[in-house]
Amino acid sequence: MAANNNNIPTKFPNLKPRGPGGEALLAAERAKTSFDVNALSKYMYSQQWLDKMNNVLQIIENEPAFDKTNRYYQSRPEKISTGLWKDKRMAELAVEHNWDDQDSQIANFLYDQSTPFSLHYGMFIPTLRSQTTDEQKKLFLERALKHEIIGCYAQTELGHGSNVQGLETTATYIPETNEFEIHSPTLTAAKWWIGGLGKAANHAIVMARLITDGKDLGPHPFCVQIRSLEDHTPLPGITVGDIGPKFGFNAVDNGFVMFDHYRVPHVAFLAKYSQVKPGTGEYSKPPNAKLSYGTMVFVRANIVMGVRYALAKATTIAIRYSTIRQQFVDAASPKKWDNKVIETPVLDYTMQQYRLLPIIASAYACFFTGREMYRLYELNQQEMQKGNFGLLADLHASSSGLKSLTTTMAIDSLEDCRRACGGHGYSMFSGLGQFYQDYLPNVTWEGDNYILTQQTARYLLKTFRNVLAGKAEPSEHNQTITYLTQYLQNPKAKCPASSPEEFLNAELILSAFGFRAAYGIAKVAEQIDRHGRSWNSMLVEIRNISKAHCQFMLVRNFLVTLQNDAELAKPENKSMLAILKTMSYLFALHTMEKELSEFLLSGYLSAEQSAMLKEEIVSLLDKVRPEAVGLVDAFALPDYYLHSALGRYDGRVYESMTKMAEAEPLNHTRVVAGYEEFIKPFVHRGKNLAIAKEEASSKL
Amino acid sequence: MAANNNNIPTKFPNLKPRGPGGEALLAAERAKTSFDVNALSKYMYSQQWLDKMNNVLQIIENEPAFDKTNRYYQSRPEKISTGLWKDKRMAELAVEHNWDDQDSQIANFLYDQSTPFSLHYGMFIPTLRSQTTDEQKKLFLERALKHEIIGCYAQTELGHGSNVQGLETTATYIPETNEFEIHSPTLTAAKWWIGGLGKAANHAIVMARLITDGKDLGPHPFCVQIRSLEDHTPLPGITVGDIGPKFGFNAVDNGFVMFDHYRVPHVAFLAKYSQVKPGTGEYSKPPNAKLSYGTMVFVRANIVMGVRYALAKATTIAIRYSTIRQQFVDAASPKKWDNKVIETPVLDYTMQQYRLLPIIASAYACFFTGREMYRLYELNQQEMQKGNFGLLADLHASSSGLKSLTTTMAIDSLEDCRRACGGHGYSMFSGLGQFYQDYLPNVTWEGDNYILTQQTARYLLKTFRNVLAGKAEPSEHNQTITYLTQYLQNPKAKCPASSPEEFLNAELILSAFGFRAAYGIAKVAEQIDRHGRSWNSMLVEIRNISKAHCQFMLVRNFLVTLQNDAELAKPENKSMLAILKTMSYLFALHTMEKELSEFLLSGYLSAEQSAMLKEEIVSLLDKVRPEAVGLVDAFALPDYYLHSALGRYDGRVYESMTKMAEAEPLNHTRVVAGYEEFIKPFVHRGKNLAIAKEEASSKL
Repeated sequence: MAANNNNIPTKFPNLKPRGPGGEALLAAERAKTSFDVNALSKYMYSQQWLDKMNNVLQIIENEPAFDKTNRYYQSRPEKISTGLWKDKRMAELAVEHNWDDQDSQIANFLYDQSTPFSLHYGMFIPTLRSQTTDEQKKLFLERALKHEIIGCYAQTELGHGSNVQGLETTATYIPETNEFEIHSPTLTAAKWWIGGLGKAANHAIVMARLITDGKDLGPHPFCVQIRSLEDHTPLPGITVGDIGPKFGFNAVDNGFVMFDHYRVPHVAFLAKYSQVKPGTGEYSKPPNAKLSYGTMVFVRANIVMGVRYALAKATTIAIRYSTIRQQFVDAASPKKWDNKVIETPVLDYTMQQYRLLPIIASAYACFFTGREMYRLYELNQQEMQKGNFGLLADLHASSSGLKSLTTTMAIDSLEDCRRACGGHGYSMFSGLGQFYQDYLPNVTWEGDNYILTQQTARYLLKTFRNVLAGKAEPSEHNQTITYLTQYLQNPKAKCPASSPEEFLNAELILSAFGFRAAYGIAKVAEQIDRHGRSWNSMLVEIRNISKAHCQFMLVRNFLVTLQNDAELAKPENKSMLAILKTMSYLFALHTMEKELSEFLLSGYLSAEQSAMLKEEIVSLLDKVRPEAVGLVDAFALPDYYLHSALGRYDGRVYESMTKMAEAEPLNHTRVVAGYEEFIKPFVHRGKNLAIAKEEASSKL
Repeated sequence: MAANNNNIPTKFPNLKPRGPGGEALLAAERAKTSFDVNALSKYMYSQQWLDKMNNVLQIIENEPAFDKTNRYYQSRPEKISTGLWKDKRMAELAVEHNWDDQDSQIANFLYDQSTPFSLHYGMFIPTLRSQTTDEQKKLFLERALKHEIIGCYAQTELGHGSNVQGLETTATYIPETNEFEIHSPTLTAAKWWIGGLGKAANHAIVMARLITDGKDLGPHPFCVQIRSLEDHTPLPGITVGDIGPKFGFNAVDNGFVMFDHYRVPHVAFLAKYSQVKPGTGEYSKPPNAKLSYGTMVFVRANIVMGVRYALAKATTIAIRYSTIRQQFVDAASPKKWDNKVIETPVLDYTMQQYRLLPIIASAYACFFTGREMYRLYELNQQEMQKGNFGLLADLHASSSGLKSLTTTMAIDSLEDCRRACGGHGYSMFSGLGQFYQDYLPNVTWEGDNYILTQQTARYLLKTFRNVLAGKAEPSEHNQTITYLTQYLQNPKAKCPASSPEEFLNAELILSAFGFRAAYGIAKVAEQIDRHGRSWNSMLVEIRNISKAHCQFMLVRNFLVTLQNDAELAKPENKSMLAILKTMSYLFALHTMEKELSEFLLSGYLSAEQSAMLKEEIVSLLDKVRPEAVGLVDAFALPDYYLHSALGRYDGRVYESMTKMAEAEPLNHTRVVAGYEEFIKPFVHRGKNLAIAKEEASSKL
């Protein structure tokens, strides 16, 4: 049978989806919203930021270098080249439009994909800003700002990640020539995972063990040229390249480098804090490093705010699609449209609500905690400048645990949202697949999420011992001391709730979370201090107390802000405050249910109360259901950012799926490479049965 | 500075990793194993299967079409072409080596990547075997077996997945021409997700609503030609193509197809079970479909056994690497090697043991349950042939829930294993990234994991009502009735354990799991039957009782087999039995801890007993730790199958990481595409500072 209808490149017929389209369904959802969506966006972002975002969006949406059309079809080399194009154009746009830092950040946020220069901006330049002398600023920083040199940050090694003190690369001072000799003594000493180093960078900050005068002084930073500025060839003594494909993050050229007795001049040693005296090699120590802990709090506040965006993106996609996607008729309560029964939108099923609505709540929770972390960071910076380091320990410990808890929450929730989109969640067009892959490094970088919980737990145990010894007073800025003190005053306290509705009470909730955290801390302290259990044997419980503490913080920051925020107290914001309160309860009670065994084991909650808790959660889901689309619309994430067929603002899900399938390069040719060699011979053999019978057994 | 050391393609220097290499570390681990690893492999697989595997392995390891070297670097079109090459060569090898079905299955298992022909074998041919008349077998099946036609299975539509009855595609009988007209009335009617249809297939089994004589008879199968056999062009009236990139499974060309009043001859309707009379269009119904439920049990037993392989692969990689990867010195118990302190292998940390060792246990649990499912499948087939359908309901319900529970366990555990490999788990070279991506469809296909739990729960509730009404007797083959009866006899029963060691008791464990499942079922029944709660409002609890029931089954099959298995009772298998018992306890107690809140809420377990339970788990981890490498070695998974730098049998992790990085195509050229346009202009501008100053602001 010959064919005459080619339809290559493939075009779909001009048909509509069955039943009410996504536009109509979303419009009906939006009509149900009880609060002013724009006002909530403005409350979270400020009108000034939203205006900036819209300005930047208009510019980059019309820039071919920022086009996302091909994002999901590209091979790895294409991703990297496209990323370099964006990097160059980005630098030009910033000049053309006189962008400030916030504008550039917004452009990067909207583009939503790290690129080969990301670490040049994210680590190379900040390190040069903070760790260099004036001479070095002129030599390295000024040129880096002009992109005359492109840099990266080389710390992690093939055999060494979290344990920075175990790094193997050495930098030995050679007094005779006033140089350092950088060397990789073993294979595991290879610098590895270095973003931007694979193909883009010509310089690197290299963390190497400083050896001078026969003494090993541990890791220090050096600014080292890796490739020729003339033609990008690796310099003699350098082995450098790309570490290969990763689970995600494939537009970035993470690289490796090894050094074979590679000499760099004395000026390569970044000398703002420690120095090596030229000629003698005499070493002078850096001053107290406490101030840098403050910066870590800021970085982690950024990460928590980043979690907010991640959860906002994932829920925007999953919620919008769940109101459009229909499955089965719920016989007990059939959905009608224009007086006809239609299949039920999946968000009407309790299971789908249970999977998704608490994630919207956690996005809001992260917003309030991120904002509180910024506030405390500023406060702490002011206090430290006055010489008062009293806030630092608690702030640093909480921020470590919060980074761990919230990024783990985020990655789990992204995947929950992807799976809640059913089969189409598995298509890259959902926008959630690559997002999950690219987001994952957050659980490892800026402190591995498991190891961080040990830092938090150490502080919690120390504070517990202090409270126990009467050496710590409750204070406004230290909630840890407060809940530990309360617990020790009444370690047999019980939850007073006697009906489901009584769980909608901020004080009751905070007492429960505080008690549960304190109980866990007390138990771990008992095991270690009284029963002599080793730290290693307690690591599971150690992670649990860090989590319990940070869940307390997330819940508290959410609930307390809603009580105190002047903006939300205004009469015109009444309905906004009401829905945020509902979300705060949903977040708190759902978290309580997730961790139910700990609340039960502490003796604070009874089995009967657990049943009430579960009942109240179902009531809350019911309350939130009609507001779901409004709540994700309020995140104000533009379609360009989402780049998702399922999550579009206009709900044209199926039209978008087919458009994106038309753009698949495989659909631009009649046959795929391999057809001639591997398919045609089989099929054409069938055309002459006499031959086929001779050649083929029944097996073939 | 000019460069003279090119090193392109990149070659690493010939250096060793620091400290004891992976080979020495793994050898030390293997020396600790208390049981005969080969005997355990043989027990699980049989020597005959292991021999077959080795034979097939030797053949395909030397076949270029089966080479995995480039697997992680390929673009999507390359993956598909390589897949087609493998498909063609596979068909040839089967003839050349006279392979039986098991040999071919082993070859596919080892190759470990679905390809464009996978659905031709997996769905097209089996459907033609089971649903066709003799005439149709000649016309379709015989040609399919010879690859003269290549097929796929087109059921799912853009707007319809789990709800098969909601499919939109129609097939209207036209008596005048004795044809069917296949038609896609809307955009959502597009067949979507159809494996092999994107570029490879020329035929499809199309599930379409049969309409004859004005009556809509619901979905029925048709064998439909899609593309020309001459040149593979889509036939007139057909819109067909690839649905685009997916989260995984990208070597398969999942496709779409739409029909525009497309006519097929009468013979296209697969007519083994129902018929449409030529000319009149009169429809005759299929016979009772109960027998097909038996087949579903078999398919699901295969999936559970597949979970075993998935968990085995993931733990083999994660465990071997965790004995080689070292991080920090555990000050309380420093690890020594050749009398020198080395960093501690991460598997010595309790947290890592807690993350990984229970997953090994669950792999063994799935093995024993899979085996039991096969046994019950055979038994049930025999019984059904005698006209006895008494086993079917329980078997079908359990197999639905077990498919859901074990594949969800698997996918979560794969990701846990990947993350437990730290940073390198994120490299594709770990072998775990693509594995996770490719495994994911298992939670959706053969029944969506959420929807399946409703089937199981419906059966559990029905059985509960029967037991309550005295209409069901406990029997050897129906454990559900047994544990429900026990619960109703003593709904206030308590766990008798008074020390951690008392948890090492099969009877105690089974009582606990049975009680907890029954308690949950009773509560749901109460809510629905007495309080009138709707099914929809109970979906969360419905999923929980399905899970509780299936965890009981997994635990029971594991524990009971160890008590009864004649092979394991032999004196020479004493140490094997001992380690399997330890694993069964670890699986059971860890599952109990994971679901602790349900055991507590049922009143069966107390807070004090929970503390004992946790203590016993730590003891079990301690016991299993030295056996960990032996336990994964016993899975007997060859390096070719694993294709992982981290999981190699010889432990040469870092050597393998660098070899695989050398093979990265980006490292075969000096510069990446984009260097000339996007990097060089910036860098070269820096060479003439006078120009640079004029052109660039400080921003650039």
